[in-house]
Amino acid sequence: MRLCRHKKTPVLVSRTRIRVRFSETDAMGIVWHGNYAKFFEDGREHFGSEYGIAYDQVLAAGYTIPVVEMTCSYRKSLVFGDEIVVETGYVPTDAAKIQLEYAIYRASDNELMASGTTVQVFLDTEGHLQLTNPDFYQEWKRKWNII
Amino acid sequence: MRLCRHKKTPVLVSRTRIRVRFSETDAMGIVWHGNYAKFFEDGREHFGSEYGIAYDQVLAAGYTIPVVEMTCSYRKSLVFGDEIVVETGYVPTDAAKIQLEYAIYRASDNELMASGTTVQVFLDTEGHLQLTNPDFYQEWKRKWNII
Amino acid sequence: MRLCRHKKTPVLVSRTRIRVRFSETDAMGIVWHGNYAKFFEDGREHFGSEYGIAYDQVLAAGYTIPVVEMTCSYRKSLVFGDEIVVETGYVPTDAAKIQLEYAIYRASDNELMASGTTVQVFLDTEGHLQLTNPDFYQEWKRKWNII
Amino acid sequence: MRLCRHKKTPVLVSRTRIRVRFSETDAMGIVWHGNYAKFFEDGREHFGSEYGIAYDQVLAAGYTIPVVEMTCSYRKSLVFGDEIVVETGYVPTDAAKIQLEYAIYRASDNELMASGTTVQVFLDTEGHLQLTNPDFYQEWKRKWNII
Repeated sequence: MRLCRHKKTPVLVSRTRIRVRFSETDAMGIVWHGNYAKFFEDGREHFGSEYGIAYDQVLAAGYTIPVVEMTCSYRKSLVFGDEIVVETGYVPTDAAKIQLEYAIYRASDNELMASGTTVQVFLDTEGHLQLTNPDFYQEWKRKWNII
Repeated sequence: MRLCRHKKTPVLVSRTRIRVRFSETDAMGIVWHGNYAKFFEDGREHFGSEYGIAYDQVLAAGYTIPVVEMTCSYRKSLVFGDEIVVETGYVPTDAAKIQLEYAIYRASDNELMASGTTVQVFLDTEGHLQLTNPDFYQEWKRKWNII
Repeated sequence: MRLCRHKKTPVLVSRTRIRVRFSETDAMGIVWHGNYAKFFEDGREHFGSEYGIAYDQVLAAGYTIPVVEMTCSYRKSLVFGDEIVVETGYVPTDAAKIQLEYAIYRASDNELMASGTTVQVFLDTEGHLQLTNPDFYQEWKRKWNII
Repeated sequence: MRLCRHKKTPVLVSRTRIRVRFSETDAMGIVWHGNYAKFFEDGREHFGSEYGIAYDQVLAAGYTIPVVEMTCSYRKSLVFGDEIVVETGYVPTDAAKIQLEYAIYRASDNELMASGTTVQVFLDTEGHLQLTNPDFYQEWKRKWNII
């Protein structure tokens, strides 16, 4: 698995499958590069559901987790109708952040099409940036043996 | 002006100019049909700013105005780089609704590319549908001599 | 089934399930109305795959089928995380058009959230509008006993 | 100007102004992070028009220039109605690539909201990656005294 370049264990990974929409293509006949952010988001949501840190669970704990960094590296072009697998992996860090990395594979031949990363921070209900891990997140890390 | 098919006067009309984005095209090389809703929205916002019924003004009065009906008729295809003019016209009605109609012209030759309509209703802050015109809207209509 | 308001038989219907994306919501906290065009497209593609008239099959026959009319009626608001079922039904017509109608249900309680229609026409590879049904389409209709 | 962290001269820079669309917001009430790719693209197109290396000019020379890398760093949240200025700067490189960097400012107070980068490569009409600068690009660099 190409996401496992981080040494700490366990690295939590989830996989979800998506079909490229026609509306996601552009006049070059390929998926418009900006739309990969949607695929990452699908991966992130799937990860959240699988590991108990979904958007609504974070919200229920009193936080929002906006993306503050995103990178994407494009290797091959996706076209309409392609089925893709988004692999989302958790990258351990001590900082009060959620770091994820993504790999997008074409389902038909398991070719790596793109990879990327996101960093999210914690804001409380008043929009204040949290400099230390919120309790719920600390517990979540403990539960998954990340700390 | 092609929007003036309604007999009551005055028909309020505003015009705004937009450049088609590359991300709005699709693999047929033309603007994806669903993106015209964005052009209508640009037109609607411009109308709201020009006539004092912008989204934030409606919100300040205690209401949201979700779209409950939309139609679009496509005549010619827009391509990347096209400059368009969105013409937004107010359609008088006694119902507690905002009815607008839209015409999208290609700026280079004034060709009509698409036309459409939207209907919006009033919800109060608790999400309840208003069956009669909110006071602020009634005043707005009076101001523009629509009633 | 609420789509069956057309009397000719058979009415071909397909159903597909989608999860609402976070990127599809807007600042009102609900799915932005323009994004329903994506749901209709998902439904249309699913219909095409199920009944042998998918985009690439049409393309292989030498035609594109742009949408020339779209309508959407919004009844209730979709929110992030909602699972929806898009029901796509074929509306018989003698004209050289593909008419489809859509119903979007919330999966959790089968509530009708929105409905709509599209009309598509046939263009040949040079972009000429076809005034009579292309042969491949005529055969397709015969196969499904629509003629 | 915050983009000028590259030492070679001249650094070509262009600026364009955009109004945030309602459809670009999300349920957090802010612009969905993936939509910044559209703002970068607006900046890129404006740069291309200003400096004679627009998409259609590249296409006329026989090349497409897909984005192969994108990064974005988000500092503050944009909301509906914000006017922004996208500053796009050219980053000299000897490689057969177009490297651009972007800074997005809120027009009302000149606050830096986000910054980012893109890398584009040259593909010929058959989709082959160019390992050396195409002639038209070499000439373009010469014209602007970048080489």
